[in-house]
Amino acid sequence: MIRKALERYIPAMQWGKTYNKDVFSGDLIAAVIVTIMLIPQSLAYALLAGLPPEMGLYASILPLMAYALFSSSRYLAVGPVAVVSLMTAGALGSMGLQGSEYAAAAIVLAFISGLMLLVMGVFRLGFLANFLSHPVISGFMTAAILLIAASQIKHLLGIQAHGRDMVTLVGSLWQNIGQINPATVFISASSIGFLIWSRKGLKPFLQRFDLGPMLTTILSKTGPLVVVVVTTLATWLFGLNDSGVRIVGTLPQGIPPLTVPDFDAELWGKLGMSAFLISMIGFVESVSVAQTLAARRRQKISPNQELIGLGAANVASALSGGYPVTGGFSRSVVNFDSGARTPAAGAFTAVGILFAALFLTPLLYFLPKATLSSIIIVAVLSLLDFSPLRKAWEYSRPDFAAVAVTILATLVFGVKTGVSAGVVLSLALHLYRTSKPHIAVVGRVPGCEHFRNIHRHDVETCPHLLTIRIDESLYFANSHYLEEYVLDTVADSPELKHVILMCSAVNDIDMSALEALEEINSRLKSAGIKLHMSEVKGPVTDRLKHTGFFDELSGELFLSQHEAFAKLSCN
Amino acid sequence: MIRKALERYIPAMQWGKTYNKDVFSGDLIAAVIVTIMLIPQSLAYALLAGLPPEMGLYASILPLMAYALFSSSRYLAVGPVAVVSLMTAGALGSMGLQGSEYAAAAIVLAFISGLMLLVMGVFRLGFLANFLSHPVISGFMTAAILLIAASQIKHLLGIQAHGRDMVTLVGSLWQNIGQINPATVFISASSIGFLIWSRKGLKPFLQRFDLGPMLTTILSKTGPLVVVVVTTLATWLFGLNDSGVRIVGTLPQGIPPLTVPDFDAELWGKLGMSAFLISMIGFVESVSVAQTLAARRRQKISPNQELIGLGAANVASALSGGYPVTGGFSRSVVNFDSGARTPAAGAFTAVGILFAALFLTPLLYFLPKATLSSIIIVAVLSLLDFSPLRKAWEYSRPDFAAVAVTILATLVFGVKTGVSAGVVLSLALHLYRTSKPHIAVVGRVPGCEHFRNIHRHDVETCPHLLTIRIDESLYFANSHYLEEYVLDTVADSPELKHVILMCSAVNDIDMSALEALEEINSRLKSAGIKLHMSEVKGPVTDRLKHTGFFDELSGELFLSQHEAFAKLSCN
Repeated sequence: MIRKALERYIPAMQWGKTYNKDVFSGDLIAAVIVTIMLIPQSLAYALLAGLPPEMGLYASILPLMAYALFSSSRYLAVGPVAVVSLMTAGALGSMGLQGSEYAAAAIVLAFISGLMLLVMGVFRLGFLANFLSHPVISGFMTAAILLIAASQIKHLLGIQAHGRDMVTLVGSLWQNIGQINPATVFISASSIGFLIWSRKGLKPFLQRFDLGPMLTTILSKTGPLVVVVVTTLATWLFGLNDSGVRIVGTLPQGIPPLTVPDFDAELWGKLGMSAFLISMIGFVESVSVAQTLAARRRQKISPNQELIGLGAANVASALSGGYPVTGGFSRSVVNFDSGARTPAAGAFTAVGILFAALFLTPLLYFLPKATLSSIIIVAVLSLLDFSPLRKAWEYSRPDFAAVAVTILATLVFGVKTGVSAGVVLSLALHLYRTSKPHIAVVGRVPGCEHFRNIHRHDVETCPHLLTIRIDESLYFANSHYLEEYVLDTVADSPELKHVILMCSAVNDIDMSALEALEEINSRLKSAGIKLHMSEVKGPVTDRLKHTGFFDELSGELFLSQHEAFAKLSCN
Repeated sequence: MIRKALERYIPAMQWGKTYNKDVFSGDLIAAVIVTIMLIPQSLAYALLAGLPPEMGLYASILPLMAYALFSSSRYLAVGPVAVVSLMTAGALGSMGLQGSEYAAAAIVLAFISGLMLLVMGVFRLGFLANFLSHPVISGFMTAAILLIAASQIKHLLGIQAHGRDMVTLVGSLWQNIGQINPATVFISASSIGFLIWSRKGLKPFLQRFDLGPMLTTILSKTGPLVVVVVTTLATWLFGLNDSGVRIVGTLPQGIPPLTVPDFDAELWGKLGMSAFLISMIGFVESVSVAQTLAARRRQKISPNQELIGLGAANVASALSGGYPVTGGFSRSVVNFDSGARTPAAGAFTAVGILFAALFLTPLLYFLPKATLSSIIIVAVLSLLDFSPLRKAWEYSRPDFAAVAVTILATLVFGVKTGVSAGVVLSLALHLYRTSKPHIAVVGRVPGCEHFRNIHRHDVETCPHLLTIRIDESLYFANSHYLEEYVLDTVADSPELKHVILMCSAVNDIDMSALEALEEINSRLKSAGIKLHMSEVKGPVTDRLKHTGFFDELSGELFLSQHEAFAKLSCN
């Protein structure tokens, strides 16, 4: 009984039973490769979030272990990611906090976000993410990537700049462009060049040396690590920090600290909305990656269990000095491709990062910030994709409007406003569309039982009879529209005796629409016209019967439009 | 050209052409009767709004003339009404203003509301009112009536009380219940008694005196005027104001002052939302009354022209020392029943009220406030109707939730929160419902071309073939749901070779849903299952063709489900 309940929420209890040496070796190799990727990334993304680099490492230890225990996805690699780091910077940056207060707020943000995800998981509220439409998500991602890239330019050039929106940021960069530091630019340019080359060129290059497939694969992912090592050594050897190259400096060495989030009601209130958006965006992106990877091996994931996994990871992050985490796209793909078979790969990665936190941090003293920015900028720009804009333009102008507004609002007003504007606009456009539904006057296609739009087809009609097909569920936002449409159409036809509402596409009728139908019925009645209905769906009929509407109806209820036409038409 | 444009916006230019003596006499009699009703009501509603009584008179002169010029409704009687007066009190009461500042803010409120209505009229934005669902409107009206009644109790009992929400109001009344003033209670009780009797009893009583039908009709509406005259005289004769009966006191005498609204950006910002709600609620109620009355004589009104008429009335009110006005329910019915034929009746009423403002105000010095409260309470309680609650409970729980939440939120948190909560909840429930659409697996009804739910009917199916009918348009909020439904259903059927999506009830497919269909197609393809579609509507097919989706589709597009079944089934 208890075991079953536990198994439901802790998938690790199931896959753990069949864990064996084969699976272990797959997981281990994947973990080594992901660790190599994650060490520089975690430092870099912490920098992007405006946090000390070690918080990136802390966010890559306990959260990975917690996620391994609770996740339903076998391949998703969680940890600090670029977009969530940008959102963290956006949420905290506007609060005017400094140093340890800023870091403490990041911990609180992870904690709130974790709690929200857990609550949504337990109460199966994952469907809320469905209201983030595809145009909003893709527009937001495009804008976020541009913002991230812009925010790194100051590190790449070694100048000062500030701002969390595009306008301020670009203006500030422009003002300080004169302070460009040549040594920094040299580090950035060579790092970016090497990283771009290593994405595609490193593996073929290594294959020349006959190192065996496994070592080749592992080494081919070391591009970021190589630039970290090389630029750190160069900075140390040539004393580049004295020439104005900004370095990471002293990082604390040791296991992650145990942190207790600040329980300050005002702070929680201010961070609530940001935590919600971070949770939602992180969840949507994670689930999308996890589903794609699971489908490749005909496996399934449970979105609600993912909420619990991600929630546990964020709570763990908050308790161990980290900041908000979620599933990373490229890291998960590498994890999958490197042969990971279970979430244990994530736990092994955590051990690797722990090792780094214990022993490697002193070696990073001379690591240039420009190197980390180079890693960020190469990672995110490879994800930049403007095709949704073009596709939306071709397919649907409202969807295009949603993408465009989300991108612009995110760039100009920042992350929170951008996503909110996109969601509100998507909903408003959807509601506007359904508030003016497609309504057609239909007639019978000669010789068969089909009824089609009189404006599109050559059909049989009758001057005493008007058949109106409504192509939308009837609810408050469109019930007045229907009322006006019917009464206006009727006013133009003096010979009319019967109006049939053909309801084949009406999936629901709410109370406002019911009132409207009653109104239409009584107005037509007083004009001597009978109102009939045809092809009303079963569940809708059941509910209308219950209200006595059909007793009031001046005409009849026909099962099929054909029946109605046969009985009422003058032909 | 110019004349035509003018005629479009000024309906008076059309009905004015055929104006004659017959129509004039009908309008005049109606105007006399409405004036008799309106004098005490306008004073009383100004009191309800927390304003000096003369502002009620001012709001009943110029606004009526402006409305007569621009309205498309022939019978709607505009002026101060109870619910809008309550909303005015709610909007201004929370701002901590006193005396002339409070009155100035009321004038600004009328001005903003008038501008909003005009803008909505010119840009044909009347459809926005459709988002006020029937449950929200009726819930709000019920709560508003209860709040109005509660707010008048202090005047009826002659005690002090404060509060704009039910809890504060009742608590405050309870605390001060000991200060009840016997003379005031006597005036209230006898006024209320007489008013209730006069609603039904006055006309039959007058008929005994053989005064002729016209005079009888006019006199039968004088109930409120009689209590005003009698209680004013009694207070003066017996010096009841010395016994603690609170009186109206000195009212200014003369034509309405010319007022220029305060152009204070901060004030406008604070009043914007309230002005919008007042405009919307006033508009919805006015149009509903106007439509009902127009239908009785087979006439039509134009909702967008009504926006212009009501907008002009409110701007006129703001320019002549008034406060927000709209169409009144009972007053309009009386206007119609008394024989009004054109909006000129409203203009004649305005002349009557002007006469009152010029000559009658000194006579109202001793008018007890309790008398005005008695008039308000009898007027609003006759409109109280709990039937929407019962009806919604029986018909639809989501609609019931919307009514109940609107009532409770309005009573507890006030007017603005109440309406907003209702609108947001209605939209959320609608979106939630469409985010989990009805989806059925269907099979063929033996011997015919109909396809029905396999769980409801005894139908033919085939193990290689799964047909899924979706009873909702596909958009971002339900596209993931569909994706999961299809993939989950497929995962349970190892023999499956073909999946058909039957789209007879799909009126639209947005870009998120298109992505989901592409995803379903590619996942099924990789599992060796073909995806087909049937009965896709014309406009939807056209747009999908444009995207090349059908080229990617692993299966076929069938015009009818019958065709698809005939070709793919194993039978």
